[in-house]
Parts: sequence; C-alpha cells; structure tokens
Amino acid sequence: MGANGVCPLETTLKVEIITVGNEIISGSILDTNFRFIARKLSSIGADVLWHTSVGDDPETMSEALKLALRRADAVIVTGGIGPTPDDITRKVVSTVLARALLLNDDVLEAIKNRFKLRGLSMPGINERQALFPKGSEIIENKVGLAPGFLIRENGKLLFVLPGVPVEAEVMVEQSVLPRLAAAGSLRVTEQLLFRTTGIPESVIAENVASLEEPLEGVTVAYLPHEYGVDLSLHFRGADPKQVVPLKRAVQERLRKMLGQYCYAEVEKRLEEVVGEMLVARGLTLAIAESVTGGTVAGLVTSVPGASRYFMLGVTAYSNEAKMSVLRVPEILLLEKGAVSAEVALEMAKGVRERGLCDVGLATTGIAGPDGGSAEKPVGLVYIAVVSASASNVKELRLGGNRALIIRRASAAALDLVRRTLLSQEGES
Amino acid sequence: MGANGVCPLETTLKVEIITVGNEIISGSILDTNFRFIARKLSSIGADVLWHTSVGDDPETMSEALKLALRRADAVIVTGGIGPTPDDITRKVVSTVLARALLLNDDVLEAIKNRFKLRGLSMPGINERQALFPKGSEIIENKVGLAPGFLIRENGKLLFVLPGVPVEAEVMVEQSVLPRLAAAGSLRVTEQLLFRTTGIPESVIAENVASLEEPLEGVTVAYLPHEYGVDLSLHFRGADPKQVVPLKRAVQERLRKMLGQYCYAEVEKRLEEVVGEMLVARGLTLAIAESVTGGTVAGLVTSVPGASRYFMLGVTAYSNEAKMSVLRVPEILLLEKGAVSAEVALEMAKGVRERGLCDVGLATTGIAGPDGGSAEKPVGLVYIAVVSASASNVKELRLGGNRALIIRRASAAALDLVRRTLLSQEGES
Repeated sequence: MGANGVCPLETTLKVEIITVGNEIISGSILDTNFRFIARKLSSIGADVLWHTSVGDDPETMSEALKLALRRADAVIVTGGIGPTPDDITRKVVSTVLARALLLNDDVLEAIKNRFKLRGLSMPGINERQALFPKGSEIIENKVGLAPGFLIRENGKLLFVLPGVPVEAEVMVEQSVLPRLAAAGSLRVTEQLLFRTTGIPESVIAENVASLEEPLEGVTVAYLPHEYGVDLSLHFRGADPKQVVPLKRAVQERLRKMLGQYCYAEVEKRLEEVVGEMLVARGLTLAIAESVTGGTVAGLVTSVPGASRYFMLGVTAYSNEAKMSVLRVPEILLLEKGAVSAEVALEMAKGVRERGLCDVGLATTGIAGPDGGSAEKPVGLVYIAVVSASASNVKELRLGGNRALIIRRASAAALDLVRRTLLSQEGES
Repeated sequence: MGANGVCPLETTLKVEIITVGNEIISGSILDTNFRFIARKLSSIGADVLWHTSVGDDPETMSEALKLALRRADAVIVTGGIGPTPDDITRKVVSTVLARALLLNDDVLEAIKNRFKLRGLSMPGINERQALFPKGSEIIENKVGLAPGFLIRENGKLLFVLPGVPVEAEVMVEQSVLPRLAAAGSLRVTEQLLFRTTGIPESVIAENVASLEEPLEGVTVAYLPHEYGVDLSLHFRGADPKQVVPLKRAVQERLRKMLGQYCYAEVEKRLEEVVGEMLVARGLTLAIAESVTGGTVAGLVTSVPGASRYFMLGVTAYSNEAKMSVLRVPEILLLEKGAVSAEVALEMAKGVRERGLCDVGLATTGIAGPDGGSAEKPVGLVYIAVVSASASNVKELRLGGNRALIIRRASAAALDLVRRTLLSQEGES
C-alpha cells in the first residue's frame, strides 16, 4: 500500500477479464470477447492472468467482481449493460463499490437522439443505460447504444463494456488500450512463432530444451492444433537491447532445428502457404481424393484467390470413379487394392492430366470406423504428389477417430505438396 | 455437512469449469472446450455457474482449483496434461489434494504401444502422462495419448481432461456425462430440440411466442450455428406427470409450425440426415462443386459409411474442368456465365451421369472477396439437384465473408437434396 492507501502498480499490469451473461455460461453462444481482449492486452505487454465467466446472477457476479478487484491491477468486464431486466452489471458494480448510480443527462440525450434518428421515441427501459456509478469516466460507444465506463478505485482500474462483440472490440482498441498504456507499467515484449506439421510435440520440446540460450523470463508454449503443433515464445524485459538479440539468436537456432517441419513463422495456414508457393512459381494444382473426401479441396479453396492455381478436384469414392474419371487401371485396383501406394500415384497422375495442371495430389486410405483389416488397418493412408519432374508417395499410419484421420491426412497431403515444391527449388 | 463430513449434493448440481493454458489466457487460441462442455451439461440439467481460465502457472491454477472445489459440487478441468514441462495440471491437483502422483503401468504400456504403432520409441517425457494422483479413476482417451482422470473428494467430483478439443469432447460425452448423471442429483428434465436450416431466428422466436401452452419454468434457447438455428427447450420440474404432457403438446405444435425447416429433432448433422435418407431409399449421390470447393463432399464423407451412397465428387473450379469433366456445354458458359441456374443444372446432370448415380447435386457462385459485379455480386449462389424424376434449382443471395458464404451454400445444397427426396416421397 502506498502512503495514501493507493496500491502502486507492479512492473507488470495484472489483468482479469470477466465476461457476463447466461448465454455464455450456459454454452448457448461462444464467448469471443475474452480472446479478442486478451490478445490485444498481450500485444501491449499486459499480463492477463484470470478469465472468469458468470451468468446474469447478482450474487455470483458480485463475488467474481470482488475477487477480481482484490487480485488484479485492472479488471475488464463485458456484458450486462443492456436495457433489459437481466442486465445487472451496473447495479452490481454500484453495490460492490458502494457508489450510487447517477443519471448522466448528456448520455440520456444521446440515446434519445439515436432513437429519434430512426424515427422512434426511446422506450422507457433504455433510460437505465444512462445510469453510471458515481465518479465514472464515460467510455464512448461508437457502434451501439450503451456507453461503457471506467472507475478508478484505490489505484486499480475497472472497465465496464457492452457484451456485443463488435461494440466491445472497438472500445477496447480506442479507449481501453490507450488508458492501460498510460498506466505506464507494461514491459517490452518480443514474440516468435513457428507453425509446424509432421513433428511430435515432444520432439519440439526436446529441441527447445537443448537450446544453449538462457530462456529465463521467456514463456514457451506448445499449441497443438488440427494440423500440427505451433511453438510460441514470448520474450519479456524492460530493455530491448537485451531482449532483441536473445530473440534473434533463438530464432536462428530453432529455424535450423525445425527445418522443413516449420511451414510458417506468422499466423498463416498451411493451405495459404501452399497457395502462395504455387502462385510464386506460376504452377497449377489438381487434387484427387478418396479418404479425405473433398476436405483437401475445401481447404485449398478456402483461400481467397485460389482459382488462380486450383483447377480441378475429384473425390473418387468408388472404384468406378477412380477408373472412369481418374483412369486408374482396373488391374492395379484388383492386385494392389484401392488403398495402396501404386493407386495413390495413379490417382495423382490421372487428376493432373484431367485438370491439365502442373501438380497432381492424391489421397487414399481408410478413415474408419469400419473397413479396416489386419493388413490394412484404419488409419493407413497413402498420399502422392506428381509433377513434371517429381513423383512422391508417402505411407502414413494415423491415429484418432474418422474426423481426425481425415484432417491429419489432409494436412499431410498439403505438406507433401509444399515439400515437393521446396525440393524442386533445391534442384534448380 | 453430512454425518461423516460428506457434503450432500444439492438438488441441482453446481458445476465449475476450469480451462487451463497459456495459449488460452493470452488469447492465442479461442477456447471452445468451455462452450462444448457447458452446452452438454445444461442439456442434462446441471447448473454451470462459473467458468475460470488460467495460464500454465502453478500458483494461479492452485488458487482457481481450491476456489472451485469450495463453491461447486463438480469441477471439470481441461488442459495441461500433455507431456511438456508447461503441462502442470496433474502436479497442481496432486499438491492441492495432497495425493501423491503414482505411475500407472497399464497406461504407460498403452502409450508406449501408440508410439510403437507409428514405428517410434516413446520419448522419456511422455512417461509423465501415465502419472495420476492417488485414488484416481482413469478416464480412457480413445482419440489421443493422455487419459483423463476423476477424483472423488468429500462428495465432490473433480474431472481432469486433456485440452485438445476433439479428445475432451469425446471424453465428456462418453465418460463425464454418465458419471454426473449417476451422481443422481439432477432435476427431472425433459428436452426438446429442433435443428432448423433456412429459417431466420426471429421467425422461430415468433412461432414460439405464439404458443398457447404455458412456458413458465421452461428454458427456451435459440442457438445459431453455421448451418442454421437450433431451437432448444428445457422442461424442468420434479413431477414427470406435469412435465411430460406439456412437452408433448409443445412438441406437436412446433413440429407443425417448423415443418420442413426442421431437419432433425436429435443431435444429428444435416449430412447425417441426408445420408440416412439416401440409404433408406437405396439411392446414390454424386456432387459437382464450384463455389463450395469440395466442402459439400467433405461434409458428406465425414459421415461413417458414406461410401454406401456417395460415389463421386468433382470440384470444377475452372471452366475447362466444367466442360471436360462435367460436360457443361461451352456455349452455356459463354452465354449465361459459370454462375447461373443453367450451368448449375448442367453440372448436376453431368456429375450424375459421370458417377452413374441416382442423384446429382451442384453448386456454383461467388464466394468473394473478389470476383463480384453489380449484376452478379459476391454471395450470389445457385444450387441444383437432378434425379430421375426431379430437376430443382435455387438461387441464393448469401451474406457474410468467404468462409461463411461457402458454409451457408453447402448447408443449402445438402438441404435441397433433403427436400427433393422428401417431395419425391410425397409424390409416390
């Protein structure tokens, strides 16, 4: 405690975010406000330590607010400041901080005007959106009706914002971030990201553990996602002269260690990376799918502008389709089976010719739950890439349920295109 | 407190969910586990009252866990049981509950086998995934490596699950829900679900508001999702003799009101419903996609056993592919354009013939962000279904970004197959 009862902020600003609403706590809607705010705060070096969600219940909410004001330097509440009876946030704040709710005439006037502009008169219940706990600083809402507010209490900051994501987001960027930055207690933060596929999390962790650089004060996170594992490092410290060289050294070392397993060092999806590589080389792609059932084509076409390089996709689920559309020889299907390296290669070749494309990609395998055998179990997948100069095929043994096998096979297929393009680069 | 220090569960089970991970608390990823679990728990009549997120920090996590065990009857923790040093959940649980971590040989053996199947030997750090606090009940993980566990402490239940969504989701459905239901403290709850597509949320809400049945004590939720809106009603009350007749009356009325907009009254996806209809009628399906780029085929093949009715999918992104693979006449592409009702119908016809199938489905349109014009704006989509006796085409004007337009067009396409099959039924 400071001389006059004010807690000095610590070198890092500790933040708690509280999201309020029955629709959130019951799982009816996905809470996106928390992530948006946390990401923005992390980017300016604040430490988001707690996130709490509660329903529209005064008792639970009071408890959550009291706890947050005790343990955090700044608290951001979203939700519960609308006009309906279930919107209780301003009342709870008023009670917990023992500050009376006062009517703000300017805000009331502005709300009335918003209705007037739409040719309506303001319903009585909207008046409460002009009520604020005594001593509040009004935070303008440029998108919706209800302004937010900021209360400074014992050196701590309490922000209250609307729950509607687009409103909360604008207010965070325009009002909350500048006020937190002005609190002047944020650390310099550098960040590294390595998006990898095809390498187990534990192997990445062993690589990181073998680094000679000192990683005290560096947060290392392994983020598994559907297509691989992201390695994320946050470097913190007051002095850029120390942090920046450390970051560069670690970056260089990890680049070498991860090699081709890393497909991006920015927030970019594998299919975007493959698309950019195709555009850069002026190449076109055709895709033949069996086990992945259209998922690879769906990923490729999820990227804006995919029509510049993607021409044709064929999901050949039946053997007839493999023969008639992709021209896979019947004898191969009979002798090797549809799930085989040979058929994968023929599918890639066939779709490449059909689509008049530079690169042909194919997948075949068993996604389950049925259809497996001792010799060819569920999870057995072959992927193949054929281009003018290359002909690559790969056998995979994937774990997981049907959905996961399909996703993992799709990622591996895209990655084989990436690696084929990279190796052709090496040749020329 | 009960006679022997056991807290009796209240009539409603109060639940807290704790999601753990630096990637969550820093906003790097969107936490979807909470919503999934909350939704499932709400459906069995449990009261989710708190959601807390913390990072991979032992101190913060201990606090959160202690608090949750004090105020909730059941606590569900997800995340932090992976193999890397930042995975601290099992350690924190062990400390907070003063239960030593013991190695489970069966689990260790199973993990080693998973690596062996992939031709790898288990890295040393994975051994810790076989450590469990003394007295834990192991919860099988059918999808990934790390099993979860359940601890019963003073009449309270503590579930610990992995953070990977697909793993946590399967475990919640197969292990957590049955164990919570067995705790025997849930209120009698009847539930109605109407999964709809193609009808606005506000129109559904007007239907519900027009019901004559008394809905006091009934929770009505509108749950918009990517493909439409779910209407969910929860009937609560101790006496089944009152609740059940009310539920039946409401069910009958809403069935009439929603009609064909409702594609399922159970947790079934649209593509599953369409698949079942095809199987029941002994029909096969071929799909030609342009704007949806393989997404419809991907949805159809996400259903186990889709190979019984799905034969061929063609993603014809270029005009050449539309002509050569789907045999769309060049003159039609020149005169009407690739995005037209006529081309959609020809694509459906062409893929039906190519795939030797009973039903042909096609999509063409402009997903954006580029490629729109005044005459044919972004969001303009045509879908067509051709069968032996029917030939339906529909024009859609969809809102949203590229990803949303693709998803909405895919849902509408599947729904057109469903409605075509339904109307053929009416004819015969």
